[in-house]
Amino acid sequence: MRIVVALGGNALLKRGEPLTARNQRENVKIAARALAPLARDNRLIITHGNGPQVGLLALEAAAYSGVEPFTLDILNAESEGMIGYMIEQELGNVLPEDIPFATILTQVEVDPADPAFRHPTKPIGPQYSLEEAEQLAAEHGWTVGLDHDMYRRLVSSPRPKRIFEIRVVEWLVERGVIVICTGGGGIPTILTPDGVLRGVEAVIDKDHAGALLAKSLKADMLLLLTDAEAVWKGWRTAEARAISRAAPEALKKLEFAEGTMRPKVEAACDFVQATGGRAGIGALVDAVAIMEGRAGTVVSTEYEGLDYWPTLLDP
Amino acid sequence: MRIVVALGGNALLKRGEPLTARNQRENVKIAARALAPLARDNRLIITHGNGPQVGLLALEAAAYSGVEPFTLDILNAESEGMIGYMIEQELGNVLPEDIPFATILTQVEVDPADPAFRHPTKPIGPQYSLEEAEQLAAEHGWTVGLDHDMYRRLVSSPRPKRIFEIRVVEWLVERGVIVICTGGGGIPTILTPDGVLRGVEAVIDKDHAGALLAKSLKADMLLLLTDAEAVWKGWRTAEARAISRAAPEALKKLEFAEGTMRPKVEAACDFVQATGGRAGIGALVDAVAIMEGRAGTVVSTEYEGLDYWPTLLDP
Repeated sequence: MRIVVALGGNALLKRGEPLTARNQRENVKIAARALAPLARDNRLIITHGNGPQVGLLALEAAAYSGVEPFTLDILNAESEGMIGYMIEQELGNVLPEDIPFATILTQVEVDPADPAFRHPTKPIGPQYSLEEAEQLAAEHGWTVGLDHDMYRRLVSSPRPKRIFEIRVVEWLVERGVIVICTGGGGIPTILTPDGVLRGVEAVIDKDHAGALLAKSLKADMLLLLTDAEAVWKGWRTAEARAISRAAPEALKKLEFAEGTMRPKVEAACDFVQATGGRAGIGALVDAVAIMEGRAGTVVSTEYEGLDYWPTLLDP
Repeated sequence: MRIVVALGGNALLKRGEPLTARNQRENVKIAARALAPLARDNRLIITHGNGPQVGLLALEAAAYSGVEPFTLDILNAESEGMIGYMIEQELGNVLPEDIPFATILTQVEVDPADPAFRHPTKPIGPQYSLEEAEQLAAEHGWTVGLDHDMYRRLVSSPRPKRIFEIRVVEWLVERGVIVICTGGGGIPTILTPDGVLRGVEAVIDKDHAGALLAKSLKADMLLLLTDAEAVWKGWRTAEARAISRAAPEALKKLEFAEGTMRPKVEAACDFVQATGGRAGIGALVDAVAIMEGRAGTVVSTEYEGLDYWPTLLDP
């Protein structure tokens, strides 16, 4: 099977944990152990978020007065190197030496007219109190907003349209290479009317980029892995249920707030409806069980016509 | 022909120029125009230095007090993303759309017993006055030293032994992909006795890494491009001559001081003696002319037995 795995920022750094090299590496080691069994029997393509990392790089650049800070496209390229390196090294360390790896720098086309450029919604960097956030917003000209009860910097997150390096990724997957690509959603790039590529100030959502990657590679499965065990119906209500199986049509009718499971649900449904493949949403540690349909939320057209919501407690 | 091009840090940023995104991009555009003609008729593999860039990333990380700075292996990975992105985008912008590109994150094995770990010699980051350099050395625990009449931070620069991703690079070159790899000399990595890869605090010389890359790929030519037009005999003496052709045996007998053409001469001779291919050393803008033997210093075993030093002024 061809499996595209999208690792959430929270799978690489626990919420609220400081972004030290040591913490990142410890989390990447956990991810490597969770993904190693998938890599042995499948064609594995890995993508990952970069919210905490690209935010940190922006803060570091702002803290140094020697040169003006680089734009988010360049910082995204830096984060693809940083995170790709750790994943490649640690996954390589738990797999046989003869399995080849490639971490590919990835530029992703976005539409310069995407309304997201006028409405920043994507949280990056650390969490702040309201007071800290307001002070930083004034100092750096940031937009800030709520994310899980704390404030963070918000940046534009346009939809990914095309992965420029996709041919190379396809060739490497055919050769049996484990490919790490489209990191942080890929470097947001516009194609100007005169055919020139230019990076832009944005961070693409890695779940949407993962769906585009999985569609472009005709993957059999898209695994969206995070720190939550499944998609919940009625989250934070008395009737909350962890959904184990759903058809995309049914799942899309549920409502999810910004910053919750919404991008994962959209990405999973998009992939399943476009390709007929299966998608899984759940906890990184459950990667194998989700692939086998024993954990997480599995989205498939096979479940069309299901007239109830199977939960993780169902047999 | 298979040509490995190594772009010097000074080909990507003029000496003394501030490391802004704009300055980097302007220099990368110049490099892209110089390399485009080579890319049309040859298999091109590009590597590049990262001295100024990895030094800047270290300074930015040190300026931000939120988390402890990352080690040089991680910063090197960041710089491979940053610089690879600019080269890939700008070279792509001057070449036909159907030419595929891949920027590959590269880990390079070094020997943990390499004496370079005890003698830092590789300058990174900006230039300082002696007073500034001494203050920074005390503050950050750096080694500092002279580089072209100014002071810079010096880090360990062990010899590259093996490029871990070389199979992937070879496959892509065979498919006609322009590959950007081994950036900044590659991420310095040791293979522990129990078979685990681990990054180390160092910056590999990109000319030596370029020679290893060219040998590993059995390239026909290695081009070491910088801001100087050739290797000079008797540099800064009344008898100074720009050497146009030399056999490796003869060239290796000349003396070059640390921080001058020495690593380029060593890398060129190493490649030529190991493979029988040709090497060229000279100015980035002369890339095509150097390849054709009309500019720069060309090193080849064909010139064995030459009993004088042909100069650029010779017909």
